[in-house]
Amino acid sequence: MPVNLTVPSIEQLHPVAGLDIGFAMAHIRKPNRKDVLVMRVAEGASVAGVFTKNRFCAAPVQVCQAHLKADKGIRALLVNTGCANAGTGERGLADAKATAAKVASLLNIQPEQVLVFSTGVILENLPMDRLLMGVDQAVAGLGQASWLDAATAIMTTDTLPKASSTRLPVGTGTITITGVSKGAGMIRPNMATMLGYLATDARIAQAVLSRWTTEIADASFNRITIDGDTSTNDSFIVVATGASSAVNIQTGDEPEAKAVLEALKAQAIVLAQAIVRDGEGATKFITITVEQAGTVDEASKVAYAIAHSPLVKTAFFASDPNLGRILAAVGYAGIEDLDQTKIQLYLGDVHVAIDGGRHPAYQEAQGQAVMNEAEITVRVQLGRGQASTTVWTTDFSHDYVSINADYRS
Amino acid sequence: MPVNLTVPSIEQLHPVAGLDIGFAMAHIRKPNRKDVLVMRVAEGASVAGVFTKNRFCAAPVQVCQAHLKADKGIRALLVNTGCANAGTGERGLADAKATAAKVASLLNIQPEQVLVFSTGVILENLPMDRLLMGVDQAVAGLGQASWLDAATAIMTTDTLPKASSTRLPVGTGTITITGVSKGAGMIRPNMATMLGYLATDARIAQAVLSRWTTEIADASFNRITIDGDTSTNDSFIVVATGASSAVNIQTGDEPEAKAVLEALKAQAIVLAQAIVRDGEGATKFITITVEQAGTVDEASKVAYAIAHSPLVKTAFFASDPNLGRILAAVGYAGIEDLDQTKIQLYLGDVHVAIDGGRHPAYQEAQGQAVMNEAEITVRVQLGRGQASTTVWTTDFSHDYVSINADYRS
Repeated sequence: MPVNLTVPSIEQLHPVAGLDIGFAMAHIRKPNRKDVLVMRVAEGASVAGVFTKNRFCAAPVQVCQAHLKADKGIRALLVNTGCANAGTGERGLADAKATAAKVASLLNIQPEQVLVFSTGVILENLPMDRLLMGVDQAVAGLGQASWLDAATAIMTTDTLPKASSTRLPVGTGTITITGVSKGAGMIRPNMATMLGYLATDARIAQAVLSRWTTEIADASFNRITIDGDTSTNDSFIVVATGASSAVNIQTGDEPEAKAVLEALKAQAIVLAQAIVRDGEGATKFITITVEQAGTVDEASKVAYAIAHSPLVKTAFFASDPNLGRILAAVGYAGIEDLDQTKIQLYLGDVHVAIDGGRHPAYQEAQGQAVMNEAEITVRVQLGRGQASTTVWTTDFSHDYVSINADYRS
Repeated sequence: MPVNLTVPSIEQLHPVAGLDIGFAMAHIRKPNRKDVLVMRVAEGASVAGVFTKNRFCAAPVQVCQAHLKADKGIRALLVNTGCANAGTGERGLADAKATAAKVASLLNIQPEQVLVFSTGVILENLPMDRLLMGVDQAVAGLGQASWLDAATAIMTTDTLPKASSTRLPVGTGTITITGVSKGAGMIRPNMATMLGYLATDARIAQAVLSRWTTEIADASFNRITIDGDTSTNDSFIVVATGASSAVNIQTGDEPEAKAVLEALKAQAIVLAQAIVRDGEGATKFITITVEQAGTVDEASKVAYAIAHSPLVKTAFFASDPNLGRILAAVGYAGIEDLDQTKIQLYLGDVHVAIDGGRHPAYQEAQGQAVMNEAEITVRVQLGRGQASTTVWTTDFSHDYVSINADYRS
């Protein structure tokens, strides 16, 4: 069961002018589900992306990177679920390019103007016949589908579609920001999400959008983890269609730029957290904040050591305040000269460990009360400096094992 | 259920001349179990140890390191289970020192000649009254207990005691090597085992034994992982009592030195693998070999990325040849310039992926046949150089979650 994750209604997901959506049920892996998504973007739109750092990155990721570099103006995005087209060698690359070419021919654009994304099982080839038929269907339906369709069409082991939308009065009018994300396992930065798409009708110059996309990812999708497995296919794309004349951001120094950036970031955080809330087998939504680190990198090491520890995660699943496991994770996070006598640990507002030892006033009932909540904050202070970070994660439950052991996702 | 782990009989566990064993049932955490162990070592014995790299190391680990450094000749080892005396601050250190002093006064030796070890729950103080009474009992019984008692007295979530023994004809006679280990969760190098003790009656100079202990650990306890959590208390101790005159190793260059070292290493590997075989919830014993790496460090990164991946481990639990998950782990192991087109993956003898893509001849039935075994070998070739390494690990099962979520171990 997802943790406090609600699905927006179609009405709450505002269309983004300059972006059309179409989908197909192509039976890529399973019948009777939306598994192909096409998004068509208006000419002149800015499109930027960040991708998995996994060196075994999938064929579509390689094609996306090449097509963004070609800088011919992205005009369409194609997503399929069911097959990741990863670990597929030369044939996988050829398949990814062929699907981009197919979309291009249908839309009368160049193949380099198409980005392609795949998610699903690794080490299997795309079923090209079914996928290409699906592309035909999805393109034929362009403009008739909603963002909720888009969110549904990119799901794999997700139990709920993930989407978010807002309208922001800014500049001379109002801009719309709407996005979708998917992913539930094999989730760890960089990138954290399997797939995330955020679109706005604001006009934002390509150079600014590229810079912002990294900053947005670092504040959202790069701060979530479920199982510590970095996927081969993770991609996060931001589209600015420019269909609205409310703002025209060319340098990022415009007075309204900050508001637009912050609004994009806020939506990305909602979409990223939605992935955690729907994490495979999740029963808790856990925020881990590490403070007083020497550097942000140090803070991240500690935060992820806690977030990835199976012992910490199973204790959260059990609502068991077995908090020594958190301290053990702090200790093996990789800070060579860590001084354990300077460490403070808080669970919610409860001061559990002081100067590396159990707080004399700490009572297990206090820890238990926090552990019983569905949303829990862990705060660690390292006593080394001023840097801090926050990551979001889930617990580790029987259902996680079932989902990943009993089914081929 | 442990994977192919058998418990030696008392007769198979040869006593080591110059080392006496005593135990107590002290109700440190649970009633009616052996939970205090004392080993008395003959005067003149060499004793060396390696310890956890966790910066949050427990009080007893700090005391051990100080006492070994004091170099007064170790004469006794004290182990308690049930409470790790970690995350216990100044009081924990004082408690550890007080237990060493207690053993010293009973045996008429100096406190610095005593090593102390604790394993169990973190962030709780030792029940000193019960522990000190247990020390009295255990010392009173010295010489009356077996190595099987020792193996049993150090168990926590272990389902079976772990011990190994051999006799080696060497030099002018025969030496005995016997050891015990414990640990089932929170297992990752360095060190991997919670506790491991290996003893021989061979005469080995302190400087040689110190050097050998690191080498033995690197070949055994530093190559196992269950959940990737490095404990706060891991300790591996080698004792050479010198009671046998069969060999006298003073430099390590003696003709018989290599045979003695290899025999010690072989027993340590048995004890280390026993921990994996009895890993929490283990249903498979998995050997991961990485070859053709540029450096051993590179090979280790890849081997541990595979060994720690929850997705890989749940697939093994399910006997599901979902082998793309292994390739994904190779990709995120942290080798920046990894070329995926040079990667070979073998499952047992089956060539699954060739040059980064699925092998054209690979059939899932072949992978399934290997997956159905209880002992599985994964072999990855990186195509980067000559270095290689091997690590041993387990799968990730429902029982792992149950053991760590349903009970406070």
